[in-house]
Amino acid sequence: MKVLVTGGNGFLGRRLVAALLERGAVTGADGAEHEIERIVVSDVGPGIAPPLEDPRIDLRLGDFSERSAAAALLDADTGAVFHLAAVVSGEAEQNFDLGMRINFHGSVRLLDAIRARGTCPRLVFTSSVAAYGGDMPEVIEDSTILTPQTSYGSQKAAVEMLINDYSRKGFVDGRALRLPTVVVRPGKANAAASSFASAIIREPLEGRAYACPVAEEAGVWLLSPRRVVESFLHAASLPAEAFGMSRALSLPGMTVTVGEMVAALREVAGDRVAGRLTFERDPFIEKIVYGWATRFRPERALAMGFAPDADFRSVVEAFIEDDLGRRFAA
Amino acid sequence: MKVLVTGGNGFLGRRLVAALLERGAVTGADGAEHEIERIVVSDVGPGIAPPLEDPRIDLRLGDFSERSAAAALLDADTGAVFHLAAVVSGEAEQNFDLGMRINFHGSVRLLDAIRARGTCPRLVFTSSVAAYGGDMPEVIEDSTILTPQTSYGSQKAAVEMLINDYSRKGFVDGRALRLPTVVVRPGKANAAASSFASAIIREPLEGRAYACPVAEEAGVWLLSPRRVVESFLHAASLPAEAFGMSRALSLPGMTVTVGEMVAALREVAGDRVAGRLTFERDPFIEKIVYGWATRFRPERALAMGFAPDADFRSVVEAFIEDDLGRRFAA
Repeated sequence: MKVLVTGGNGFLGRRLVAALLERGAVTGADGAEHEIERIVVSDVGPGIAPPLEDPRIDLRLGDFSERSAAAALLDADTGAVFHLAAVVSGEAEQNFDLGMRINFHGSVRLLDAIRARGTCPRLVFTSSVAAYGGDMPEVIEDSTILTPQTSYGSQKAAVEMLINDYSRKGFVDGRALRLPTVVVRPGKANAAASSFASAIIREPLEGRAYACPVAEEAGVWLLSPRRVVESFLHAASLPAEAFGMSRALSLPGMTVTVGEMVAALREVAGDRVAGRLTFERDPFIEKIVYGWATRFRPERALAMGFAPDADFRSVVEAFIEDDLGRRFAA
Repeated sequence: MKVLVTGGNGFLGRRLVAALLERGAVTGADGAEHEIERIVVSDVGPGIAPPLEDPRIDLRLGDFSERSAAAALLDADTGAVFHLAAVVSGEAEQNFDLGMRINFHGSVRLLDAIRARGTCPRLVFTSSVAAYGGDMPEVIEDSTILTPQTSYGSQKAAVEMLINDYSRKGFVDGRALRLPTVVVRPGKANAAASSFASAIIREPLEGRAYACPVAEEAGVWLLSPRRVVESFLHAASLPAEAFGMSRALSLPGMTVTVGEMVAALREVAGDRVAGRLTFERDPFIEKIVYGWATRFRPERALAMGFAPDADFRSVVEAFIEDDLGRRFAA
């Protein structure tokens, strides 16, 4: 069986592809496990990490959102699609046309290409907690309305609606997962408002000073990259009936304050590492961050077997193990 | 100033156009009332009723959803757009491609054409209670998630998301209204599951027998055509700030059972008219109808000055006045 991973050279896509290669099998359109003969890895560029070496990888560099591009990524035996390709929130906000083209129209074209194939593969789609926003209750329930306040969140929420309907009609067997903020992200600190949530762990561990732009009280709803990839595979493995009346789901995460994150860093890596952090509050960033949903009660997902991280200490340890080669700059 | 009404020859579009002509003015992009110089009435066909005669009407027959069609309907002085054109729920369910083309892609193209004009007109969009569905609470709150279970509802919900975002970005000044079931609709009984809700009033008043396919206990969340048109005009008149963090809104309606509707009919038109009704329960229709949301608490809309009908008797009386020329078949 073939598997398609869009955005497969990205931070999460690469981990997913590695996990798929290691498992060697994935659930197909018929609900049974199938050996993976080939993983079509679609991305616009090679990504920052060195390419994964495996004869089962079929790398296709190009823009999946272009007309007919999605069709060329699918085969009669493509049994599972992981649609991760997206323009991130900051970029979708600054470049509206790009966000619409990739996150929205590209996703619709992918759905139509899947429909045209007629094989109804499983589709795991990365939606986001950014689909929530506006006047929110203190705790987000599974029944809480989506009123996104960013273009990124709006595009994700609109695609969720279509995935539900294309699934109801039997054109695809979709599963849309609203990811919490993924922490710890490797790479460099960037202009995204959520950048601090990974940077306060990553930068000190890599020996760099970092000025956190939000107060210790700021909370984040987060999930580790390991758990995200496990959630992708779990979502693909569940029978359609498990989703009931909606194919979209808020993944479980945990609410952690910056103060708690720093305490865990200190516990794992010591005072010297934690001492590389300072606080320089940025009212612009704080305003965005305090507008985010930080408390959820994702009962459906928990009942379906999705799981958050055990605690934040284990998130830090997993980062050191997976991304720093088990060593950090003490 | 110019006004665009898509679906302007339809049942609601025609009433809206008549109301606009009578008022002679509407709120424009600047928030001020402007005299209506021209109403561009867009529709695929002439509609069932004789055309409205007014020199201010500029009738454009054709499919608004075709590429570049929407742009041709807009001018530099189009200050208000009422986007009513849609394929109805039964048709969108049976003909998925048609529903996607008109209700979804057509609406996106209209939004993009408005954006390209750069004048940020007010836009009133007809969404629907069909945007709700699935596992619903007993009473739908403004904070209840949209999990539509029809293609029609999914298409409407997806467009709501984009209208919110295009409005937030300043490309359009949108207002999406989720209409209750509109009762009493003139015309013939049709295959739509909601057809009975109008037919049990209309058919007996026009001297025809009618077999109601659902039990007297069946409830409907409804709004009269008069109130719908008032709601369109009210929505266009409100300042953007009144909508807060979401441009989408469930309109107030009232929950009426079939039994209560029949009682009102009997009160207004007598036993002989009500006697033209029989009950022949249809399990297929009942299953659909009992899946609908019938109880809402539309607090935002009520606070913003939208109003339901006073009682169902007045809905029956308004139908006799507006659609039957004040006479019925006693």
